[in-house]
Amino acid sequence: MKSGLSFLIAARRCEIDELDQLARTSELVGVIGRLVHALQRERGMSNVFLASHGVRLAEQRAPQIAECLALEQEVRAGFDQLESEHHRGVGSGNGARLFSRIAWVLPGLDALPALRRRIDALELKPSQSTAAFVKLIAGLLSVVFEAADGATDPEISRLLVAMFNFMQGKEFAGQERAFGAAALAQGRSDETRRLQWQHLIESQERCFQVFVDFSGDAVLALWRESQSDATLAELERMRRRGATSAPADSALGQAWFDCCTRRIDAMRTVEDRLEADLRALCSHKTARARSELQAYRQVLDTLAPETDAALFFDDADAQAATPAQLGRHLERSVLDMVQEQSQRLQAMSDELQTVRASLNERKLVERAKGLLMAHRRMSEQEAHKMLRETAMNQGRRLVEVAESVLAMADYLPPPPR
Amino acid sequence: MKSGLSFLIAARRCEIDELDQLARTSELVGVIGRLVHALQRERGMSNVFLASHGVRLAEQRAPQIAECLALEQEVRAGFDQLESEHHRGVGSGNGARLFSRIAWVLPGLDALPALRRRIDALELKPSQSTAAFVKLIAGLLSVVFEAADGATDPEISRLLVAMFNFMQGKEFAGQERAFGAAALAQGRSDETRRLQWQHLIESQERCFQVFVDFSGDAVLALWRESQSDATLAELERMRRRGATSAPADSALGQAWFDCCTRRIDAMRTVEDRLEADLRALCSHKTARARSELQAYRQVLDTLAPETDAALFFDDADAQAATPAQLGRHLERSVLDMVQEQSQRLQAMSDELQTVRASLNERKLVERAKGLLMAHRRMSEQEAHKMLRETAMNQGRRLVEVAESVLAMADYLPPPPR
Repeated sequence: MKSGLSFLIAARRCEIDELDQLARTSELVGVIGRLVHALQRERGMSNVFLASHGVRLAEQRAPQIAECLALEQEVRAGFDQLESEHHRGVGSGNGARLFSRIAWVLPGLDALPALRRRIDALELKPSQSTAAFVKLIAGLLSVVFEAADGATDPEISRLLVAMFNFMQGKEFAGQERAFGAAALAQGRSDETRRLQWQHLIESQERCFQVFVDFSGDAVLALWRESQSDATLAELERMRRRGATSAPADSALGQAWFDCCTRRIDAMRTVEDRLEADLRALCSHKTARARSELQAYRQVLDTLAPETDAALFFDDADAQAATPAQLGRHLERSVLDMVQEQSQRLQAMSDELQTVRASLNERKLVERAKGLLMAHRRMSEQEAHKMLRETAMNQGRRLVEVAESVLAMADYLPPPPR
Repeated sequence: MKSGLSFLIAARRCEIDELDQLARTSELVGVIGRLVHALQRERGMSNVFLASHGVRLAEQRAPQIAECLALEQEVRAGFDQLESEHHRGVGSGNGARLFSRIAWVLPGLDALPALRRRIDALELKPSQSTAAFVKLIAGLLSVVFEAADGATDPEISRLLVAMFNFMQGKEFAGQERAFGAAALAQGRSDETRRLQWQHLIESQERCFQVFVDFSGDAVLALWRESQSDATLAELERMRRRGATSAPADSALGQAWFDCCTRRIDAMRTVEDRLEADLRALCSHKTARARSELQAYRQVLDTLAPETDAALFFDDADAQAATPAQLGRHLERSVLDMVQEQSQRLQAMSDELQTVRASLNERKLVERAKGLLMAHRRMSEQEAHKMLRETAMNQGRRLVEVAESVLAMADYLPPPPR
């Protein structure tokens, strides 16, 4: 029969296993970030290539695709590693959800060669090509979301939440670039387009706000530095131009694309930094946990479990004399260590809940949107607008309105056939 | 490189591993329930034995202790099994917290022989002996709490929550039995005693209410059956007598003890039923998950991953013709299966949050009480009374008041030295 000490050590080892797992997942998140960035560039180039009927950026596409392929191999290798570790029994609580996301995105990666061939053959419209890349990138980002949601260490979770929101915000910025380019090229503007554009801007800002809330000063300084006032002013001016019904202007379209690209490329420096921070945090944490376990074992070796047994009912014995009062300080320490460990685990779990709250809010808003889209045949933009306006009118937070919508699900009209 | 299909299966296998783990933990919870029941009986007998200066129940104690020892061996074997499974890498998300609870309670089990020797030697007062058993049982119940909190299947979690609350309610009933016996024997009553008694009654009722909320009709029928109107009426009459300053009455004390014992022993039938239900649910769920995985594998064998790849960007291709429209229904099914799996996992996670909310409420109330006890040098009963009165005065729920207290922690006076 094992002693309490064995379980004290087993608890610590559980934590170390989880940190190791988290370090591997974080590594994967970093590679996914780089693949997403490369795919965003390929998406932009493919767009220009298709819109110019195969004339522009034809040469630049090949090296970009080669970069994507190399990163794709890294991501796939990371996926495989997670899967084989699960075979070996190493898994965190949300393994099923993480694997389910990976199962979803892999056919998308498998389909990339065929997509590229059709782009080569000019068989797709720019909007079709964009939609395909958007879907694939959304799948990759959902893996990052699950990784953040499954993290069991609050500090690492915090960084993963910041990272996910940054990557998602950057993706909305990339979508805005493509959307604005098409809008400015076409030249006319209507209410639907204004709404869609507004939606992309707001979605970006919401993501970057969460990123800001969850980031430290050093990263935030880098973030402000990456977004120069001049670029932002130019961006806002062109956004305003796009919202009015100006005539088609190809020079403006090009200026828009360049301005957005400068901004998005600059974001990559922040992503690099987040990736490096995450790597450093994981290795620092696992190293510390291991050395603590070592120290733990040494302390425990010096202690006899019998004394703990004698002390367990100490409160009850308060009035009765205990046989040995000697070495009291040392003797107490195993029960004290258990107490400390238990308090630390509780504090971690509390902080984790706080960090995850932002992810839960996102889930709730997405589900409320999905519900409205299904039951009222709305587009995502319309559903978002409806939630947002309700929130504004009622002076409530978006997530509160989303919660009400979900709570009222039974009262909504059935989905139209 | 592995395909999406491998990950679809990996996700399902993760779920099966978690169910297996849950089945073992549930098994352990059942054994803990039986050990707690046996210890409650031993506590009651030791009390009478000590109060009668070793005259009464001297013979009955020995077989009761033997039963406790046998169940203790089972519980320890269950603990060891969990630990060795962790060595093999099988672990759920809250392994560290579960092990930490076990590390806490094991020295208590180690200390039982010494406690019993001191009871044999009449070295302890009844109140000291009771306090020691209360502490040990609280430690065992905290293992059950962690098991319920770590469960990843909502239906099993629901049953574990019902079970934990039932066991905890029964334990408060046991404490009330000991407390009331001492109070009636002493005969005088004061405000502190009334408050403590009231606290035990309310704590019981709160636990049984959660149990009722989380239980099905069959169990509830058994519960109502176990609590006969006659016993309950007698119980309430004696509670009322205990609250007034009646003279000491040893006959009344005995009647109280017998009435409480009838009620508590009858509760064991409900516990047995909950344990059987839990066992049946776990084996049903794991069997179903395994046969689903089997069916899954068969479907997946008939599918070529390439078709999924071709279909991933289907939305984007809506306007373009797809080469093969044949066998469409079958071809879609892998992506559909991923979609289904992901929706099912999301629904499970949502329901799990609902079930766990009741555990979180308990954690919040306990932490708010702990904070008040530390900062204002209150007893647990006083802290509970303060929270309850605030809730009543403000027309809020207990958990809301607890949340406010925790949010205001920084405003509380520092703990007295």
